[in-house]
Amino acid sequence: MKLDDNNSMPLYLQLKNTIKGLIDSGEIKKGEKILSEYELCEKYNVSRITVRNALAELESEGYLIKKQGKGTFATTPKLFRPLEDSIGFTESCKNAGMQSSSIVLKREVLPLDDRMQNFLKLNDNDQVLYIQRLRLADGIPLMIENNYYSYQNYRFLMNEPLTGSLYELLAEKKGIVCDRSLKTVITVTTANGEHVKLLQVPVGAPLFVMDGIMGDKNGFPVHYSLQYIVGEKYSFVR
Amino acid sequence: MKLDDNNSMPLYLQLKNTIKGLIDSGEIKKGEKILSEYELCEKYNVSRITVRNALAELESEGYLIKKQGKGTFATTPKLFRPLEDSIGFTESCKNAGMQSSSIVLKREVLPLDDRMQNFLKLNDNDQVLYIQRLRLADGIPLMIENNYYSYQNYRFLMNEPLTGSLYELLAEKKGIVCDRSLKTVITVTTANGEHVKLLQVPVGAPLFVMDGIMGDKNGFPVHYSLQYIVGEKYSFVR
Repeated sequence: MKLDDNNSMPLYLQLKNTIKGLIDSGEIKKGEKILSEYELCEKYNVSRITVRNALAELESEGYLIKKQGKGTFATTPKLFRPLEDSIGFTESCKNAGMQSSSIVLKREVLPLDDRMQNFLKLNDNDQVLYIQRLRLADGIPLMIENNYYSYQNYRFLMNEPLTGSLYELLAEKKGIVCDRSLKTVITVTTANGEHVKLLQVPVGAPLFVMDGIMGDKNGFPVHYSLQYIVGEKYSFVR
Repeated sequence: MKLDDNNSMPLYLQLKNTIKGLIDSGEIKKGEKILSEYELCEKYNVSRITVRNALAELESEGYLIKKQGKGTFATTPKLFRPLEDSIGFTESCKNAGMQSSSIVLKREVLPLDDRMQNFLKLNDNDQVLYIQRLRLADGIPLMIENNYYSYQNYRFLMNEPLTGSLYELLAEKKGIVCDRSLKTVITVTTANGEHVKLLQVPVGAPLFVMDGIMGDKNGFPVHYSLQYIVGEKYSFVR
């Protein structure tokens, strides 16, 4: 494909879309090394800065990954998750044209502790329902999700398959619209132990940690959520 | 200090505040190892889960850092930055009671390139003003900030000290209220080369990458900004 100087789209975007198209169509395979900057300049008859701009955007969108001293490689694009309250993993995947799935890892009733009692406004005689899931997009693990609920109010989750959207399930089964973040904190950490095994990332890989309390439309807590998200595969956007 | 069972504040929060107070007052020094979980249980006469909850919160707020196999150490708290458009680094520091400062590393006029022209809606005869600053809180480097402007419109920044809030400067000097994010993307990467040297973090330390276009109140682009932020010292909150 030739780039078009008379096109109103900047050259770097034309080049970006061209390369993206080659990756999406499988002409450039995931894991395959792409042409060097110099070779791309030659092939598309564009300047170095145009090539660099195109690669920078593809890298930030996760289509390419640079490996120090080795070159630039095609990879799976990042999942873009809006920095808004009401959009969960399932919906983000749908918007990105990815197939989301979930594996339930743990489903346990824990004794009441004062932190969860405080976060979830639990009665003294309640317990904590803890559910851990691995969330995948197109079969690739993207996050470990740890959710904590009132056992009294959410006991029915013990008997649900929980393979899809939790928010949809809560809405359908209980009429609970869980769409209000009462608190959200995003930090980072590095992968070790359990993260490495479940998320299939190297030790030391950067992970987003997102923790917060989600509430219903009256502002009452539904669950406390702690997520470990593969940094390389994820971005938050607004 | 004795914890109070009849206090309406949960025990783990009382313990958290007690330890936080010891760190803030300098009684526990930064870098110092704190008591083990067992020792804390004994000292404050509380359960293991209460100690764990208190430590979990102090760790997530960056007052403590766990080192695998070595114990838990006091450290400098994280800077909490609201996930809102209009709050910059200077204001976040002020809210946290920290002293912000800046070091200008680069101030260059770059040739126009199509990516910046696209992002900033530049004229064909404009150039790009590139300013790189190191931003510090209480003297500790927290981020590398790369800002790109229209040289025609923001040339005056060449002659400003730029040691404080840019948003305040733009408002005072030019009446430009730069408070609208036209696009924000938060990703993560790991530190290498320049990051390591400037941010004084180890190779491989996780960094937030925040990039986006900030606009004025009419939605016209003011600058494109690319920030590398020390993950261990930072959190985004809502």
